[in-house]
Amino acid sequence: MLKTIDRLLNDTSSKTGKSFAYVIQLLIILSLISFSIGTLPDLSLQTKEGLRYFEAFTIYFFTIEYLCRVIVAHKKIKFIFSFFGIIDLLAVLPFYISTGFDLRAIRAFRLFRLIRILKLFKYNSAISRFHRALIIAKEELVLFSFVASLILYLSAVGIYYFEHSAQPQHFKSVFHSLWWAITTLTTVGYGDMYPITIGGRIFTFFVLMAGLGIVAVPTGLIASALSQVRNEDQNNN
Amino acid sequence: MLKTIDRLLNDTSSKTGKSFAYVIQLLIILSLISFSIGTLPDLSLQTKEGLRYFEAFTIYFFTIEYLCRVIVAHKKIKFIFSFFGIIDLLAVLPFYISTGFDLRAIRAFRLFRLIRILKLFKYNSAISRFHRALIIAKEELVLFSFVASLILYLSAVGIYYFEHSAQPQHFKSVFHSLWWAITTLTTVGYGDMYPITIGGRIFTFFVLMAGLGIVAVPTGLIASALSQVRNEDQNNN
Amino acid sequence: MLKTIDRLLNDTSSKTGKSFAYVIQLLIILSLISFSIGTLPDLSLQTKEGLRYFEAFTIYFFTIEYLCRVIVAHKKIKFIFSFFGIIDLLAVLPFYISTGFDLRAIRAFRLFRLIRILKLFKYNSAISRFHRALIIAKEELVLFSFVASLILYLSAVGIYYFEHSAQPQHFKSVFHSLWWAITTLTTVGYGDMYPITIGGRIFTFFVLMAGLGIVAVPTGLIASALSQVRNEDQNNN
Amino acid sequence: MLKTIDRLLNDTSSKTGKSFAYVIQLLIILSLISFSIGTLPDLSLQTKEGLRYFEAFTIYFFTIEYLCRVIVAHKKIKFIFSFFGIIDLLAVLPFYISTGFDLRAIRAFRLFRLIRILKLFKYNSAISRFHRALIIAKEELVLFSFVASLILYLSAVGIYYFEHSAQPQHFKSVFHSLWWAITTLTTVGYGDMYPITIGGRIFTFFVLMAGLGIVAVPTGLIASALSQVRNEDQNNN
Repeated sequence: MLKTIDRLLNDTSSKTGKSFAYVIQLLIILSLISFSIGTLPDLSLQTKEGLRYFEAFTIYFFTIEYLCRVIVAHKKIKFIFSFFGIIDLLAVLPFYISTGFDLRAIRAFRLFRLIRILKLFKYNSAISRFHRALIIAKEELVLFSFVASLILYLSAVGIYYFEHSAQPQHFKSVFHSLWWAITTLTTVGYGDMYPITIGGRIFTFFVLMAGLGIVAVPTGLIASALSQVRNEDQNNN
Repeated sequence: MLKTIDRLLNDTSSKTGKSFAYVIQLLIILSLISFSIGTLPDLSLQTKEGLRYFEAFTIYFFTIEYLCRVIVAHKKIKFIFSFFGIIDLLAVLPFYISTGFDLRAIRAFRLFRLIRILKLFKYNSAISRFHRALIIAKEELVLFSFVASLILYLSAVGIYYFEHSAQPQHFKSVFHSLWWAITTLTTVGYGDMYPITIGGRIFTFFVLMAGLGIVAVPTGLIASALSQVRNEDQNNN
Repeated sequence: MLKTIDRLLNDTSSKTGKSFAYVIQLLIILSLISFSIGTLPDLSLQTKEGLRYFEAFTIYFFTIEYLCRVIVAHKKIKFIFSFFGIIDLLAVLPFYISTGFDLRAIRAFRLFRLIRILKLFKYNSAISRFHRALIIAKEELVLFSFVASLILYLSAVGIYYFEHSAQPQHFKSVFHSLWWAITTLTTVGYGDMYPITIGGRIFTFFVLMAGLGIVAVPTGLIASALSQVRNEDQNNN
Repeated sequence: MLKTIDRLLNDTSSKTGKSFAYVIQLLIILSLISFSIGTLPDLSLQTKEGLRYFEAFTIYFFTIEYLCRVIVAHKKIKFIFSFFGIIDLLAVLPFYISTGFDLRAIRAFRLFRLIRILKLFKYNSAISRFHRALIIAKEELVLFSFVASLILYLSAVGIYYFEHSAQPQHFKSVFHSLWWAITTLTTVGYGDMYPITIGGRIFTFFVLMAGLGIVAVPTGLIASALSQVRNEDQNNN
């Protein structure tokens, strides 16, 4: 009996195991969609009722699944404190605990359960390649993150001194200016804050010239490290 | 007779075949332009009339061309259900069918007929290189698309909880927040929705730091896979 | 005499020739700055007078320089119709012709005269490397430009059908929607036009996912072609 | 005695030296945070008082540290005029000098003192790799910066002539248009200035097509030069 459950839950090479895994993944996605629908304003009472029933159903299903996983695990403690063990618990726990805090947001963490989907499609090698690429580019990534932080802070201080007196309602403090620095150097540019003084604009010009590269380089580093890892794999095979 | 038509339609190495192909491409572009002009507001009756006549002319021309292509095809069924067979049909069909639905938008699909232009300029090798580059980077692309989807959804849920109470008119639901997540992580940043709470801004900072790379890496992957394929081709020649 | 002028104008390896070249470059930059200042509103009469005198001085200087270049050129016709010959002429001609048209904008073309600065700093090898990189990546660049154009047009038609009825004042026609498509797919995102319907937003999501890569790949292609060319050069030396 | 101080300040391989270095880094970060908090509006008198005391404490600490560093330095003059010597002085000097100017902004320069943190984590090799990557890509970077400047200026002049008459309040002069060119070609797109005429929009389209690549290529160049340097290092080891 235990063996059958174990195979059902963990043996994704067998046909029944695979089907069961697909069913769970589908349920997770459906429960995430129903969770999102639940945040819509002006829902009819009927819809709210339906969503609540579906939520209860998925929670009971996930709870049974979690308990089964604990039972069939060889090293129970190790499973409970593993990444998936904690995620599986967080996906159901908020439902049972009713505290003063609003714990519904935690339900979104069941999203992480979807990561198991990668196992199904045998993406282990792609993940390991990504992992190795991160190790290769690690030092550069840390260095650039550090320099990017320095540039963000300096930009915020600089723009604060240029724009504070001209737009005290927008550039209220260095922290408010930091928000401008982030949205500008990532080129998001919402348009809620922008320099209007000549000094502030010239400063922004130099910040963009120096900072854009720094902020965007890590992406290029990951991409080139990934191709390097792939080449190494191809040469070894 | 059939042979002459066949050569006219399909033999782009002969001079007449090439000229005919250019004429068709030109007609497609002109019909797309006339279709676009037709959407302009405040057109004079004369212009509308002219556009309608031109539309009818191109449709009759494309219909005859389509019928000829079917007639000269060796495997008629195969051609009709091929990519270009379906596109060629979709380019003329909406004109003849008048239903309750507005089918005019489908006319824009005749755009795809322009893809034949690549044949004219012998871009087959570049297309095949792009195809091989996609195959090389396929696993990474799927993995990053999957992770990007997870990040988009999590960002939407997170910002919903930070901003919903402060701006209920903008961050109405998780779906509305998803729109914010998309425009922010692709750095489009229209400025129609942006966080105003301290929590929401700090959350956005971390989402941008983690997410920008993930969303932008696929571009770098395609670029480096393309150069790899090109190098392989050069070494083989 | 002619020989001395020739050396002064064209021999940037001699000290006097180099100094003279620097003076010309400086004059060009100063004349561009004075041209820009001239567009400022609310200038005092004195400043306007000063700018006009300076403009006249530079024009006379550039005219004499142009005539000298023609005189000392071995093949006069070839020089006059060369890239720099035409640019040098365009830089002074608008001053002498007073027609109904406003030709002052053409003065900005004297900017191109600055390209000679690259010669001074011996950037010929970097330019030739860039040229070779463009040749290497040429087919991919043309293919991606073509596909990017298709995507831009399709995005415009699609968003027009989704948003026209909801925002007829913004998405007036396919041409107006094309402006949206350009600012969105390049991630500029001014915020003057954005979809508000659910259909339009879902459409934008897919357009961004498919289109961002296509529009951004050429940059990666040029960068990797440039590194390839540089590597080849290093191996040959 | 001097030897002990020297080891404390400069020998980050010993345990006490490392601890002391961590304490200094922590103090710098805390003083930057307290400086940023000080710019917040509506602070209570108590908070202001607290911040002033903390500021004074860090300044005295940094002053003593600076004096010690000068005393233990073997070549005192060389240290005083070294990068870190100047930064360390700039971090404390504004506190002691009270002039008509507001020198508080200079306090932000103590941020640069954080660069010493890289020494602690042994990031010397990553910095040297970055330095070598810059040297490798130097010519291309200068060339692209130059071309990017030309494109920025030309875009500004072009858009000025297209939009000035339609929006004289936004596109006041070539300098104002330059601000538009910078925010557009870096794809920030605040939305404070954008073309509304047909000519201006078509011009923007071409500027974006030609300019985006030019402005974004340097990032790709740095990324690929960095991977090249890393590969060379791996092959040598």
